[in-house]
Amino acid sequence: MKTLHVNLGPRSYDIHIASGALDTAGEAVKTVCPRAARLFVVTDTNVGPLYAGRVKASLEQAGFAVRVTTLPAGEHTKCVDSLSLLWEDSMSFGLTRTDAVVALGGGVIGDLAGFAAATILRGVDFIQIPTTLLAQVDSSVGGKVAIDLKAGKNLAGAFWQPRLVLMDPDTLNTLPDATLSDGMAEVIKYGCIADRDFFDFLCAHPSRARIMEEIESVLYTCCDIKRSVVEEDERDTGRRMLLNFGHTVGHAFELAGNYEKWTHGQAVAAGMCVAAQLGFGLGVSGGDDSGIRELVELLKAFRLPTRIDCDWNTLVRAVGLDKKSTGDDITMIFLKRMGEAVPVRMKKEDVLRNLEAVFGR
Amino acid sequence: MKTLHVNLGPRSYDIHIASGALDTAGEAVKTVCPRAARLFVVTDTNVGPLYAGRVKASLEQAGFAVRVTTLPAGEHTKCVDSLSLLWEDSMSFGLTRTDAVVALGGGVIGDLAGFAAATILRGVDFIQIPTTLLAQVDSSVGGKVAIDLKAGKNLAGAFWQPRLVLMDPDTLNTLPDATLSDGMAEVIKYGCIADRDFFDFLCAHPSRARIMEEIESVLYTCCDIKRSVVEEDERDTGRRMLLNFGHTVGHAFELAGNYEKWTHGQAVAAGMCVAAQLGFGLGVSGGDDSGIRELVELLKAFRLPTRIDCDWNTLVRAVGLDKKSTGDDITMIFLKRMGEAVPVRMKKEDVLRNLEAVFGR
Repeated sequence: MKTLHVNLGPRSYDIHIASGALDTAGEAVKTVCPRAARLFVVTDTNVGPLYAGRVKASLEQAGFAVRVTTLPAGEHTKCVDSLSLLWEDSMSFGLTRTDAVVALGGGVIGDLAGFAAATILRGVDFIQIPTTLLAQVDSSVGGKVAIDLKAGKNLAGAFWQPRLVLMDPDTLNTLPDATLSDGMAEVIKYGCIADRDFFDFLCAHPSRARIMEEIESVLYTCCDIKRSVVEEDERDTGRRMLLNFGHTVGHAFELAGNYEKWTHGQAVAAGMCVAAQLGFGLGVSGGDDSGIRELVELLKAFRLPTRIDCDWNTLVRAVGLDKKSTGDDITMIFLKRMGEAVPVRMKKEDVLRNLEAVFGR
Repeated sequence: MKTLHVNLGPRSYDIHIASGALDTAGEAVKTVCPRAARLFVVTDTNVGPLYAGRVKASLEQAGFAVRVTTLPAGEHTKCVDSLSLLWEDSMSFGLTRTDAVVALGGGVIGDLAGFAAATILRGVDFIQIPTTLLAQVDSSVGGKVAIDLKAGKNLAGAFWQPRLVLMDPDTLNTLPDATLSDGMAEVIKYGCIADRDFFDFLCAHPSRARIMEEIESVLYTCCDIKRSVVEEDERDTGRRMLLNFGHTVGHAFELAGNYEKWTHGQAVAAGMCVAAQLGFGLGVSGGDDSGIRELVELLKAFRLPTRIDCDWNTLVRAVGLDKKSTGDDITMIFLKRMGEAVPVRMKKEDVLRNLEAVFGR
């Protein structure tokens, strides 16, 4: 078992990475929520049938009353109707302010259940049990919770740190290849923005099988990078923006595909390629473009797209909606070199002019 | 003009109480939100036609782009559908993280728009311009924002402090008597829980006309009491509970009337009478019951109900849902004496047994 401590003062918490963590969830939750009597577990139709029974048994054995609410799997679940359902359902279960919400699933379930936890009775304790690679290395750590709006992804939400993150790498074994690759996009992102050695390590392990041999250490490295960024900038007003490498254009791709055609990881993969190209074109990235070529090869090894077509209006809209935009400006994240990201403040119109070149409008 | 400073560290803010404050809103907002370009103003069909034009003109004169969204007046507007509408509408207006939401109206608009502000792009600045007595003395100060669920009132929400509260006592002149009385219930509550002299002052000013002669000082005293309680206990885990005097049973009355038959103030008025009786019956309140009789007379002077019938199941449900309840216990607020409230931790079943006597089940 590996443990990381996220130091956020009164909102600090541990991340446990351990094979078999699902079956010891009860004791772990009891330690961090000693006053809780009821646990409201949120899961989806993919994950629930596989793991909810084991988690429920462990929680009940630790003395909790447990209700499991299972929502349809898929990005469309991350909407206001689901949030409303969780609000009403948790109340009918009798949840009180000292009880807790548990997310068992991927990023959709974590973001949605976390937003519910942030707002039920103005905020109750929240436990993350991420079961996808994407959720384990990214969305379960750092306290960003949200739902999607018609206008775009993650536009309504909160900062609500979990009390505990439990990740069991064994849950990754039941993921389809495409879903694992989805997470690999964010894993690769950490290498790009913060750790050249880790990027090289990934290039040397360019397959699911090779990654899974070292999975505890991969999860640890990714969560440790995220931890250090989140500790410095909990509310995303500075350094945390670096985590958005590839995400501004990535969100446009997701929007263009109505959140159905492209997964988040696929969109980010192609978004990173665009951002790397833009940074190189603008002269932000030093040296030659060998890093970009390695990035493209690595993404391809995990069958991630390195280019996605997107209509111009959607791009313009996504750049305007981006949470890093204020007024007429937007902060873009570029690579100074492979392993080091930098924020660059730009006029939105300049970003769009440069995107025109890449997309050949 | 009177100004109060609410000291909550990085979330500190001022309350301005001034006749004509609506017409100087622009400069005041500019001072606290120097980076904002767009202001998303939320109001209702009662308040909008009277005051939105003046506020909009002042905000625009200060250089802001302004959108005014007008929702139907009434408690039913404080629901998830309205919240969803504000989320989408603010995005279509192009609101960014450095912009702000402005609530222009009573408690319903303040709570709803505040919850929207807390969650739009994970939180944007929020300005309160309360136009009812209830909102001025209570809901606009302290950062509690929420919507109602089917299961009960204020069950989904957040703590989200405003950047500024602007109150113009002149707006009270257009309130119907019943709406002013609604606010008087909370004004009287402040006397009961924290200030015997203020309670006596109110007993000596038992009419709308007499209160309006001293309105700036009444608003100041009430906000000052709320300020001191909120500063000690921003997130409602201790002393802030005292503000809930009359509210546990009051919420049952609101629920029983489906939020239509009784206003919040009416329900709290009758709830305070029940709580005062319970506290006296349990021996928490010292002395004789002269304080209760004065309270009843004062409420009657403002045509507030001192007794409301409520079916037993609704009472049981409201006691169970109360946010001050944890597990099998609930904290009730009683009067040690007129002018001093105390929290008393009780078993829910004991509360209900004592309520049986009062309601003659």
